[in-house]
Amino acid sequence: MDLKDTLLVLTVIFILIKLAAALFDRFGIPGLVGEILVGILLASIVVGDYSVAEYLGIYTVSDGKREFYLVDTLANLGVIFLLFSIGLETRIKDLLSVGRVSLLVAVSGVILPFALGYTYIYFLGDGNIYHATFMGAAMVATSVGITARVIKDNNFTNTREARIIISADVMDDILGMIVLAVVTGMTKSDTLNIGHILIITFEALIFVSVIVLLSLYIIPKIRKLLKNHDLGIHAKNNPIFAESTLIISVSVCLGLSLLAEIIGLAAIIGAFLAGILFSECSERENLIGKIESVNVLLVSFFFVFVGLQIDVSKITSEIVPTALFVIVLAIIGKYIGCGIGAKMGDKKMNEASINIIGLGMIPRGEVGIIVATLGLNTVVSGTTAISPELYTVVVLMSVATTIIIPPMLLAAFRRKYGVR
Amino acid sequence: MDLKDTLLVLTVIFILIKLAAALFDRFGIPGLVGEILVGILLASIVVGDYSVAEYLGIYTVSDGKREFYLVDTLANLGVIFLLFSIGLETRIKDLLSVGRVSLLVAVSGVILPFALGYTYIYFLGDGNIYHATFMGAAMVATSVGITARVIKDNNFTNTREARIIISADVMDDILGMIVLAVVTGMTKSDTLNIGHILIITFEALIFVSVIVLLSLYIIPKIRKLLKNHDLGIHAKNNPIFAESTLIISVSVCLGLSLLAEIIGLAAIIGAFLAGILFSECSERENLIGKIESVNVLLVSFFFVFVGLQIDVSKITSEIVPTALFVIVLAIIGKYIGCGIGAKMGDKKMNEASINIIGLGMIPRGEVGIIVATLGLNTVVSGTTAISPELYTVVVLMSVATTIIIPPMLLAAFRRKYGVR
Repeated sequence: MDLKDTLLVLTVIFILIKLAAALFDRFGIPGLVGEILVGILLASIVVGDYSVAEYLGIYTVSDGKREFYLVDTLANLGVIFLLFSIGLETRIKDLLSVGRVSLLVAVSGVILPFALGYTYIYFLGDGNIYHATFMGAAMVATSVGITARVIKDNNFTNTREARIIISADVMDDILGMIVLAVVTGMTKSDTLNIGHILIITFEALIFVSVIVLLSLYIIPKIRKLLKNHDLGIHAKNNPIFAESTLIISVSVCLGLSLLAEIIGLAAIIGAFLAGILFSECSERENLIGKIESVNVLLVSFFFVFVGLQIDVSKITSEIVPTALFVIVLAIIGKYIGCGIGAKMGDKKMNEASINIIGLGMIPRGEVGIIVATLGLNTVVSGTTAISPELYTVVVLMSVATTIIIPPMLLAAFRRKYGVR
Repeated sequence: MDLKDTLLVLTVIFILIKLAAALFDRFGIPGLVGEILVGILLASIVVGDYSVAEYLGIYTVSDGKREFYLVDTLANLGVIFLLFSIGLETRIKDLLSVGRVSLLVAVSGVILPFALGYTYIYFLGDGNIYHATFMGAAMVATSVGITARVIKDNNFTNTREARIIISADVMDDILGMIVLAVVTGMTKSDTLNIGHILIITFEALIFVSVIVLLSLYIIPKIRKLLKNHDLGIHAKNNPIFAESTLIISVSVCLGLSLLAEIIGLAAIIGAFLAGILFSECSERENLIGKIESVNVLLVSFFFVFVGLQIDVSKITSEIVPTALFVIVLAIIGKYIGCGIGAKMGDKKMNEASINIIGLGMIPRGEVGIIVATLGLNTVVSGTTAISPELYTVVVLMSVATTIIIPPMLLAAFRRKYGVR
């Protein structure tokens, strides 16, 4: 892709998403909804044989699948930096203080949606066990990116509910990976591969524990050691070292994201943990400001990308009733499941908080779409593990929960804490 | 390219270039030299059949040419943001105050190198008129990115010499585009296409004039108007508008870079002019800080990319003497040519300033490589407009001037102004 084409894509998308976000924000709707809609419109408005997005060179279609250039990479980096900055603003002690509640929210928010998705397809849908299983897995997915953006943009990061949601989301991501490992393992070998499940679970636990221990015990000691023996590397007039905290923290963020991917977890889990690692450092405030500048430019690409993956032409009149029903199940499943978890974890929690937590866990974002795409690419007993119709249903469910919930979540936060 | 591969490339390159830059900086050598060397090493260290860069997935080789993923795009965006921030730190009145000197430096810095390159190949080299012409054009190229980085990293941006160099560099880029238009027009039609030359020259002048006029007369009026009629868009608690200056300025930067590419100029000219447009705004200091955070992460990719384009295996013993001679000519041509221009423009200029300006104009950076690549892809009378041997010579010349000069330039600046 030559520079002119790259600049065309970047300029058009950047200006459109920022205008849309500003417009929606003006009317009290989270900016990300506008950004997702821009993506949907770019991919859906067809002139002649191609969509506007194709004319712009955002993606090409080959074998009916969209192959993206650059925008997918920017989207991935955007959500990595978003989770990194959320991590930076999260003190590990605060996280541990809500650990029990979060775990209960996460677990019950996995069980109920899976059961609902599975049951619906198995008993009321086409009855195919693989379709049912993948639908269950897609219902489990949560997108921490969506909720995190609402929380961050509106300064609710340091509320108790936000901490519970974010840490439950991260646990959910880990649980989601395990469910996905189970499901794909099952479709591939036609049996449950217990070994694979245990390995993923074990890796995830080790990964998270090591970071938490590093952050609590090792890093403070290294910092103290460095302070006592001034190595002279913070010399003045040295622009490279003046920026050293930013450089080192971004290196760690990229490195842990890569490591998470390598051991089979999602990159964003690594990015979030990297943020936590640096959340105790003395230059934290300064660092948050610098990462914020990067985020302003990068994060919106993630949301426009969610929209760009929608194919409106796949929405037929037969699909709409199923989709509507699945959307309702997806909302009820997480809202009730997580609500029960929250109440179990903290008997004294009031309705307003339970409502916020329930709402915050609903958006499926891109994770639902990723699960569905995997199902479409997995062939079992001569057919795909999820039918093209159910794929569209899952995509619609992911987008609907992503668009409907943020305004409600924002309103719920503001009812409790006022406008910040 | 999936996320794991993308993260691998980004993490490895980012950590290596930042380590190299820090190390070189420690010994008083500009960090960019270290970054270029990392690129050369990644592409040159071969294990088995592939270079380290190929194993990492930085590029693949097809038909003997390197096809890059992502790193080329990041490099282009990096140099665009670099020039944007240089523009932000450049007041248009300061630029105009050195306009006459800069123009003379730029013009004489084009004439002498072209004459030397052309004469050498035509009379002492293979005598091919196209080879001679392309060599002349490659000698004309300057890379404002290299010098700009040295100036910026060491806080010499607001010296008179820096202003002369930067604005002469920008003029040189424009003159270089014109020379390139002439040369390619000539090789394509076997005659000089006066019409094409006039169009490019005219477009460049219009483009620059419009921005300068906007910046001096129109933008201040709009700003005043907005101040008098508070549109209420700067409401507190609105994170999108709190960042509005950054978003608007980056939109303009991308837009003008695209426009420059569309009318046949280099993107970096548009980016520099966008910076100048915002250099008079009241939020300038704040904006410079935010762009700086982005630059810390992005700019180094430009320099590693310069190194990655080198193919060490092409350097044979027959090429070395020619290369050495061309390197000497390239240095002498710019140093003397620009020195004469500076003296002509300002009779009272002292030796130290002339020395700084002469040195600052020498690095060819990636622009020389771009010209040479164009020559290799232009077929005239059944053969390429530049021979593969001369291509390697031009690449070596570009890299050598880029690596040798920055430490000398930095030393010259420091002799006059001290360490800043």
